[in-house]
Amino acid sequence: MMKLDVLITPGEQLPGDVASRTVVVVDVLRASSTIVEALAAGARALYPVAEVEEALRLANTLGRDDVLLCGERKSLAIDGFDLGNSPGDFTPERVAGKMIVMSTTNGTGALVAASVGARVIVGSWLNLSAVVDELVRTNAEPIFYCSGREGRFALEDAVCSGIMAARVIAAAGEDMDWELNDGAMAALAMADRYADPDELFRLTAAGKQIVEVGLREDLAFCALTDRHGVVPVFQDRQVSLAPAPTAAAAES
Amino acid sequence: MMKLDVLITPGEQLPGDVASRTVVVVDVLRASSTIVEALAAGARALYPVAEVEEALRLANTLGRDDVLLCGERKSLAIDGFDLGNSPGDFTPERVAGKMIVMSTTNGTGALVAASVGARVIVGSWLNLSAVVDELVRTNAEPIFYCSGREGRFALEDAVCSGIMAARVIAAAGEDMDWELNDGAMAALAMADRYADPDELFRLTAAGKQIVEVGLREDLAFCALTDRHGVVPVFQDRQVSLAPAPTAAAAES
Repeated sequence: MMKLDVLITPGEQLPGDVASRTVVVVDVLRASSTIVEALAAGARALYPVAEVEEALRLANTLGRDDVLLCGERKSLAIDGFDLGNSPGDFTPERVAGKMIVMSTTNGTGALVAASVGARVIVGSWLNLSAVVDELVRTNAEPIFYCSGREGRFALEDAVCSGIMAARVIAAAGEDMDWELNDGAMAALAMADRYADPDELFRLTAAGKQIVEVGLREDLAFCALTDRHGVVPVFQDRQVSLAPAPTAAAAES
Repeated sequence: MMKLDVLITPGEQLPGDVASRTVVVVDVLRASSTIVEALAAGARALYPVAEVEEALRLANTLGRDDVLLCGERKSLAIDGFDLGNSPGDFTPERVAGKMIVMSTTNGTGALVAASVGARVIVGSWLNLSAVVDELVRTNAEPIFYCSGREGRFALEDAVCSGIMAARVIAAAGEDMDWELNDGAMAALAMADRYADPDELFRLTAAGKQIVEVGLREDLAFCALTDRHGVVPVFQDRQVSLAPAPTAAAAES
């Protein structure tokens, strides 16, 4: 018997055994997608912070020349910051070798809340198979943490979690029994019904808001399934890439 | 274009226009089901209160002889109360003509939170079609409020809401456009997948807890679809039955 939980809204309590589990933070539109894209494009590390002031202070501490400030408020870039939260803007030309200090409305808080887990990784459509493979490889009993939208439920986070959950369960084979929480059962149903991210994003509140502020192309970007094979890991207040698995690690 | 929202966890904010909308409070296991059963069995009114002390005080004010105290903590009856929260115990012999003061973990708080709506009604499998008919008859743009379980998501509340939502949408016909929130789209997917309440209750956290404390028969009771044609209405701090619709009311 293995456990798999999905917390479908950010207000939900983490399970009692979170300290021994892998937490997958999902904020599809757009923080998770941006984190995956930035690190795949060669950024050294990404520091999520809650407040703008904190971001500026940390940028000064790290050394302003090596740092890019990025983030959003109400989906738009923050005044004086280098970048917004559009993953397509995080090109290798701009971000390779840089440290990124990021302040977003929902994703940042989710990472901090999830940091009580034994391991915290970041999932999105951009790295969906890589996250699934990592969970399977490490024999994880994952908790998917949906970041939502200002405390509200966000359908795209639950669907993405449900797709990953279904694949982890399938990989374990039919002989494995899974103890699913209510959120996991719900997310599996949503994943069945709303499998196509391009169609889904047009329907959801977060997707509509991004279109309203003129960033429609971000939706197509965040739907690019398996664009990268990377697994961002949040540890010691920074997100960076997990080292590629070695044969020895895979056996452990 | 008509609106339909499902708040799939109790922590979610109500929409800005809640004051002009009908809110359907759903706490399938078991407060909604108990309320429906008690009123259908002839109870005059039901007073939801949060705390045990408040329940005792209100019982004294209303006149202890005309009142039954009911409710639960951790699924079990409260010491010194007349009844627990098992709907099957609310027989006409016990409750006809009585006022019922009820304190439950989740359902009571949900009713109070929902009371900012123009109209607040109570839904469950026991009165599913009656609620749907009432929403259709009044041309409502409903908000389904899932009570959940100690702040967590409860799958059975979302499924019940999704089934009612699907039927309201179907009744309006194919020419009607609906503006659905993320929770409504999610609940529709869940309703498709977990349509049978008997099977569903065996899977969910609330259902398992009720079995654990020895009240398995409550699950079968709460799955009795359309057992009653009543619509409980919460108004002036009490829940009572809506008067049967008249031809004049139906036209208004």
